[in-house]
Amino acid sequence: LRTKLPAVGTTVFTRMSALAVEHSAVNLGQGFPDFACDPKLLDMVSDAMRAGHNQYPMMSGVPALREAIAAKVAALYGHAYDAGSEITVTSGASQAVQTAILCCVHPGDEVILIEPAYDCYLPNIALTGGVAVPVSMELGAEGYSVPWQKLAAAVTPRTRLIIINSPHNPTGSILREADLHALADIVRGTDILVLSDEVYEHMVFDGARHESVCRHPELVSRSFVISSFGKTYHVTGWKVGYVAAPKTLMAEFRKVHQYNVFTVNTPMQHGIASYMADPKPYLELPAFYQRKRDLFREGLSGSRFTLLPADGTYFQCVRYDAISGLDEAAFAEWLTTEIKVAAIPVSAFYSQPQESGIVRFCFAKKDETLQLALERLSRL
Amino acid sequence: LRTKLPAVGTTVFTRMSALAVEHSAVNLGQGFPDFACDPKLLDMVSDAMRAGHNQYPMMSGVPALREAIAAKVAALYGHAYDAGSEITVTSGASQAVQTAILCCVHPGDEVILIEPAYDCYLPNIALTGGVAVPVSMELGAEGYSVPWQKLAAAVTPRTRLIIINSPHNPTGSILREADLHALADIVRGTDILVLSDEVYEHMVFDGARHESVCRHPELVSRSFVISSFGKTYHVTGWKVGYVAAPKTLMAEFRKVHQYNVFTVNTPMQHGIASYMADPKPYLELPAFYQRKRDLFREGLSGSRFTLLPADGTYFQCVRYDAISGLDEAAFAEWLTTEIKVAAIPVSAFYSQPQESGIVRFCFAKKDETLQLALERLSRL
Ligand SMILES: CSCCC(=O)C(=O)O
Ligand SMILES: CSCCC(=O)C(=O)O
Repeated sequence: LRTKLPAVGTTVFTRMSALAVEHSAVNLGQGFPDFACDPKLLDMVSDAMRAGHNQYPMMSGVPALREAIAAKVAALYGHAYDAGSEITVTSGASQAVQTAILCCVHPGDEVILIEPAYDCYLPNIALTGGVAVPVSMELGAEGYSVPWQKLAAAVTPRTRLIIINSPHNPTGSILREADLHALADIVRGTDILVLSDEVYEHMVFDGARHESVCRHPELVSRSFVISSFGKTYHVTGWKVGYVAAPKTLMAEFRKVHQYNVFTVNTPMQHGIASYMADPKPYLELPAFYQRKRDLFREGLSGSRFTLLPADGTYFQCVRYDAISGLDEAAFAEWLTTEIKVAAIPVSAFYSQPQESGIVRFCFAKKDETLQLALERLSRL
Repeated sequence: LRTKLPAVGTTVFTRMSALAVEHSAVNLGQGFPDFACDPKLLDMVSDAMRAGHNQYPMMSGVPALREAIAAKVAALYGHAYDAGSEITVTSGASQAVQTAILCCVHPGDEVILIEPAYDCYLPNIALTGGVAVPVSMELGAEGYSVPWQKLAAAVTPRTRLIIINSPHNPTGSILREADLHALADIVRGTDILVLSDEVYEHMVFDGARHESVCRHPELVSRSFVISSFGKTYHVTGWKVGYVAAPKTLMAEFRKVHQYNVFTVNTPMQHGIASYMADPKPYLELPAFYQRKRDLFREGLSGSRFTLLPADGTYFQCVRYDAISGLDEAAFAEWLTTEIKVAAIPVSAFYSQPQESGIVRFCFAKKDETLQLALERLSRL
């Protein structure tokens, strides 16, 4: 069987989680919470099942959920999507990303992505016969930033799509208003589309605001905007997310969506729709995770790790050059097997080998879990 | 935006369900039960949520569920899949079909499918740049059958995949042992793969046995075998299914799967795994649906519809030439809007326009629902 994806192995998240289990390490690798979600949310899903919401929902998603999503986006970012034709519920953000790429990238089309980049963009571009054009973020004293001039220089007549991701996995950096203006300047007057992966939209710290493309009319009119209830409501295993896009883009998205998953879990959709009636859970999320970030940073402040800025997401990147000369993959493995704290090497997020001596920790964990990891890491 | 799928509109199921709602018609169109599933299954899912099974499961699926699937297949069909490397839980059978096609069909590869064919095969082949090669079933006094000689003649050096589906949607026909031998003769000595869509595996009537490719070593060694818990347990909206395939095929499947949905709903997987401990629900399914089929057939026996054989699935196809000269799409629409019973035109399952004067009814409905539909249909 000739492979379609010669470069693909098992994801780094799966491998590091397996290694963590095998070595009884504290798992700060793969990004998922180790604490329980709100029991009210579980009740709402159970109620939906009892009420008989167990058959195919509408292909685009349960109407009440699409309306709740549209209302949230309008309230937070001031853009009014039509819940009927511009929002589709997906089986997590991953499926939204794959479907968005499959529906608009033709063989030979170029897709610009910003590295380090979440690992699912690249193989999905490969599946379409498209060509990935990576642009590297720059790492300065202020942390990671996108070199917009270099990105502009990477645009060609074959550029079909630019993928952005803010808050950014793995670096924890966020795009600011000036970044979005720079992007708008690049795409203005072209037919380039934007895929904006905003799954960590509710995890932005220190009073900064999330710069959704939905705030920028020039961008939103050409963007697939993707988010995830798994991240927002601490239920990564439920696989419910959504994509929002202007009607014409959404029509193409749904053509592929209906032959991919067709629809998304009905009782979870109803449960989440009910739960969204109260905005408090996502409005309180920045403070909730900022406290965990601060706890984790303080715990490492006396250590030999160098903390990079962490402005958003639930990830903290650290330099380890004062501790070890191992490459990132080897260091993450050593940390997991010997120190018993799993991390993710940032090198896993580059298409071409690139070593910066940085690993990523996930702080979406119980305080006790973080304390235990910190004790082990501080000994280094 | 240049479309990737010029031939694709909204699926016939979505359109007919919407029309049924709009006209308050009894919906015998889209295939889903209108009765409740076993409340025990709901308890098991609720328990799994309470037990904290709400984060990412393993990429390939919850181990207990994969083991339950392997045990079921071994018990029913005598083939021992390795639960670790040969079974993957999917977001319904639809996602399994898309991922299987995406992982093995290269641009220019030919895929043979048997028409009428479930509507999701064709667009997924188109997405890969592959070429669909349709072979029409023949309709005789005994019902629909596959013309294996014609299918053999359609094989070329570029044939990569043959898609079969038994019990068959929409015709309700089933493949018999001789059919599987004919298929084995065709693929023997080639590297052609088989996608066997067996989502109605537990709905085979009149004492016939389901001829899974898992019973045929020569076929199983080159097959993706796909099934659906939504159909089996009356929860089509849960979107949990699975694919089984030999290790080397499964490795390619998982490469695409992990960048499509990544994983499948955790609490549903745990709930279904617990529920599978008792084989009774699926062992009793043939009798359960045979009774409904008989009720529906008896109800139409004095009518001007001609009943086709219905050996499996929960669908009944009927000729309507004694009632109307409309084409199938128009007749199904007229039935829905005027007679208030929704059906699916079989013409929707052909890549090239083909009219046989046949529509499909779904009898996976409460007896009362069937009675009401029968009253309306008998008046014709
Ligand atoms: C989809 S698995 C990984 C979870 C995640 O987003 C991450 O760890 O980066
Ligand atoms: C995936 S929607 C349609 C359900 C079904 O399988 C059918 O009606 O044929």
